[in-house]
Amino acid sequence: MTRSIFEAGLDRAAANHVPLSPVSFLRRAAEAFSDKVAIIYGDRSYTYRSFENRCNRLGSALAKHGIGEGDCVSIMAANTPEMLEAHYGVPMIGAVLNSLNIRLDAKTIAFTLNHGEAKVLITDREFSGVVREALEHLDRDLLVIDIDDPEGPGGDLLGETDYETFIAIGDPDFQGTPLRDEWQAISLLYTSGTTGDPKGCVYHHRGAHLNSIDNMIATGMSRDSRYLWTLPMFHADGWTFTWAVTAAHGTHVCLRRLDPKLVFELIEKHRVTHMCAAPIVLTMLAEARETSTVSFSQTVECATGGAAPPSAVIERMEAMGFRITHVYGLTETFGPATICEFQEKWRNLPLLERSKLIARQGLRSLMVEGATVMNPETMEETPRDGETIGEVMIRGNTVMKGYLKNPAANKEAFADGWFHSGDLATLHPDGYIDIKDRSKDIIISGGENISSLEVEECLYRHHAVLEVAVVARPDEKWGETPCAFVALKRGADASAEEIIEFARANMAHYKIPKSVVFGDLPKTSTGKIQKFSLREKAKTLS
Amino acid sequence: MTRSIFEAGLDRAAANHVPLSPVSFLRRAAEAFSDKVAIIYGDRSYTYRSFENRCNRLGSALAKHGIGEGDCVSIMAANTPEMLEAHYGVPMIGAVLNSLNIRLDAKTIAFTLNHGEAKVLITDREFSGVVREALEHLDRDLLVIDIDDPEGPGGDLLGETDYETFIAIGDPDFQGTPLRDEWQAISLLYTSGTTGDPKGCVYHHRGAHLNSIDNMIATGMSRDSRYLWTLPMFHADGWTFTWAVTAAHGTHVCLRRLDPKLVFELIEKHRVTHMCAAPIVLTMLAEARETSTVSFSQTVECATGGAAPPSAVIERMEAMGFRITHVYGLTETFGPATICEFQEKWRNLPLLERSKLIARQGLRSLMVEGATVMNPETMEETPRDGETIGEVMIRGNTVMKGYLKNPAANKEAFADGWFHSGDLATLHPDGYIDIKDRSKDIIISGGENISSLEVEECLYRHHAVLEVAVVARPDEKWGETPCAFVALKRGADASAEEIIEFARANMAHYKIPKSVVFGDLPKTSTGKIQKFSLREKAKTLS
Repeated sequence: MTRSIFEAGLDRAAANHVPLSPVSFLRRAAEAFSDKVAIIYGDRSYTYRSFENRCNRLGSALAKHGIGEGDCVSIMAANTPEMLEAHYGVPMIGAVLNSLNIRLDAKTIAFTLNHGEAKVLITDREFSGVVREALEHLDRDLLVIDIDDPEGPGGDLLGETDYETFIAIGDPDFQGTPLRDEWQAISLLYTSGTTGDPKGCVYHHRGAHLNSIDNMIATGMSRDSRYLWTLPMFHADGWTFTWAVTAAHGTHVCLRRLDPKLVFELIEKHRVTHMCAAPIVLTMLAEARETSTVSFSQTVECATGGAAPPSAVIERMEAMGFRITHVYGLTETFGPATICEFQEKWRNLPLLERSKLIARQGLRSLMVEGATVMNPETMEETPRDGETIGEVMIRGNTVMKGYLKNPAANKEAFADGWFHSGDLATLHPDGYIDIKDRSKDIIISGGENISSLEVEECLYRHHAVLEVAVVARPDEKWGETPCAFVALKRGADASAEEIIEFARANMAHYKIPKSVVFGDLPKTSTGKIQKFSLREKAKTLS
Repeated sequence: MTRSIFEAGLDRAAANHVPLSPVSFLRRAAEAFSDKVAIIYGDRSYTYRSFENRCNRLGSALAKHGIGEGDCVSIMAANTPEMLEAHYGVPMIGAVLNSLNIRLDAKTIAFTLNHGEAKVLITDREFSGVVREALEHLDRDLLVIDIDDPEGPGGDLLGETDYETFIAIGDPDFQGTPLRDEWQAISLLYTSGTTGDPKGCVYHHRGAHLNSIDNMIATGMSRDSRYLWTLPMFHADGWTFTWAVTAAHGTHVCLRRLDPKLVFELIEKHRVTHMCAAPIVLTMLAEARETSTVSFSQTVECATGGAAPPSAVIERMEAMGFRITHVYGLTETFGPATICEFQEKWRNLPLLERSKLIARQGLRSLMVEGATVMNPETMEETPRDGETIGEVMIRGNTVMKGYLKNPAANKEAFADGWFHSGDLATLHPDGYIDIKDRSKDIIISGGENISSLEVEECLYRHHAVLEVAVVARPDEKWGETPCAFVALKRGADASAEEIIEFARANMAHYKIPKSVVFGDLPKTSTGKIQKFSLREKAKTLS
């Protein structure tokens, strides 16, 4: 084929084509606002110039140890400055950052370090117990570097060196090694997985850059923004806010431990404007607010996701001065991929009705090319009737490269040109996605599909309910029936009969839980309720 | 070389890699805010849904006429909805939009249509005189479509069909043809050029996407923004605001003719929040404001560029309720490439001092990978002393593919991995670029370099001066001396001696103009003062 006149002699060149990378955001912030505060953590704070210098030192020190393109650097750390620095120092030499979930057990950590072929492990003293045990299970040598954080609770030093000593050998003016290609891997994040081995999602520089910009735009961050790190940075690289806050040239307010009292103190003290948190964290904050005495006048923009926020939680947070934006995504999509865009016509609706609209997953965000609900057999979009259930499908530049060393899973996940999320949803007439369940969370009772989320949403509105999870319980007559596991608020009381009665008054009868079990709910390391364990429990109920 | 584990089996796929294109912004806006007003023009307005439908119709109608990838569609239009629609309807089929400067003469238009190999010309009746003449000079057949705008001043219909009839045959639900590659050409823009044939800058989809996002971020546009089209859309595709406003899901307020009185009326009526304009337009607005009676309370964010805004103009605009941001770029860089980021520490400086800081070209914007001043021989950055003159160099994803059919110019422009701007500047200690002149605008007097811009900046502060241009006048003794061409404000008066005396009191003596000439200043079609014609005039002064 003859090239058109617009192709001939007009190829990509060094002057007009540079690989996209979020590391560029740090360079720009340090050039334009070198004296601006980039990070606040306890008594420490860093300007953008010193933040950049520390990242450069880390990258340079790693390079001096022979780490480079395609090498994996794992980190087991809380939301401290070192964790942020790793998000720049590691990628700037083409290495791949593997953030570990700090709640993992030793066996899973060892699996991850082996599977990802980690060459370096940066680890905070606090986690020395589980990390020591993991290292004993390891089939490889790696360089271990301890983060010795004076704000931390102590713990053993396991490594050859500590972080500050290590980066001291690095060059503060190091500029990294140029990327060959924006498709190069930037990070590796293992999904917690409810069964089987974790899968390692490989992120690319291009997607990290674009998703950061997307989040910055979606949450309206600017250089006046102060972002509080309530979301773990190991969770999809903090949904890419590790880079997005820097892109906005805002301030990162670090937080080692999710202490609700401290959260409110920091919101007041540092005039926090933005944060992200799973709905369960919002529930904790709403609870804690009742005894908190601090006051703040700014509105805190809060993106929530990981599960649909119950409308009761949205109501309580809004009353406290937060504006909740519901986003939806998966580790596979760099965190947020859809956003429940607020429509002006909702503003005057009753709070309950409005909360229900906000609790939907919404629409593709600006940088996502497609997000919709399809019949996974035919790959046809489901009718926009709010009823027909299909699978959420996503495509665009903020979908991972794929799962590490897992061609079978990649083939399945990327079949027919879309990422298959495994989440079941409907499409509303306005095109908004409304997640009904993970595939395996649908309850089929008497041939009817029951969304466990819908039953949960209803029960969350009961005044005594703190948390609830609904799963299928095998039933001879109906096949399955809904079984509700309920944690009550402190000091609150309710009987199983009351809960069932409340459900009967508020939803279709076939959806009402036939059994109610009280007690604390088991959680995964990322704070998700472990439905698989509740399903096992439901099977054994007499 | 063995591929790392992060490369193997993890190639780009349809699910995770989609070519970047600004057409995607329109799709998203129409999905998320279909009923929101996208365009206001006189008595017409279009929602995002109807805007998208009209763009789809245009793309579909063109496709039905056999127009497709790599075909050039030229347009000669004012800032009307049709011009905006062409920015989506043409690229969505892989065709290349060539916006013509409406102030061009017939010969240059004919040259452009021939050189760009236009297959279609969409042309507004107003310009039928010059276009008819151009078509007579043409060595090719093309489809001519008339824009018959009831708001326009009339003129002949030249084409086979009119725009509304043409798009009526198109499919409103047409989805375009998928891009093969984000490096495909999206538009073709000829630089006005002071001598020789115009050069055609070819833009790529990737850069148009990224520059739009950059502008949206830099000017803080959101879906509540209302952008007034004071900047011609034919000028670097409206500095990519043709796409950026849509990316923000804001409202385009179209404006056929730059009537300062109407500008203020529209600012009031449509609560305009954003606009762009060359400094000369700001000067016109400041003049007109004195007799305007409309009032508005919002701050209008105004990006200015194309020339450094004289500080007197910044002062007057700020007093009127505008916030001026100085951006700098060229047609070759999709418009703005640097931005004079405002620093908090400037806020309490005296207005004059602050204006001088703002009048600098500033720093690379977020999506530009590098913008600095270098010695073009050594390609070393000049010292940050505010004194040493070098050439502004730019690199990144928002630099054009190159000049059409001009390998020699491309080689020169992209030498050593940087785009060579041809603008001469210094670097200040804070890293801000400060343009002193185009190469040929430097005056060399007695061996000293004199920046004509600096002399102009000084003279602009004289109360009677409306516009001023300073050029070199040949001189037997000094080689060259500065010669000032001055247009006075209406009703104001000043003698040459007064002007020279004013200069003497305010700048180094060797920089003082030796001659002052009063009268209107000649302009290029984009409103730039034609210094080459003034230089000719200066040579003949007795």
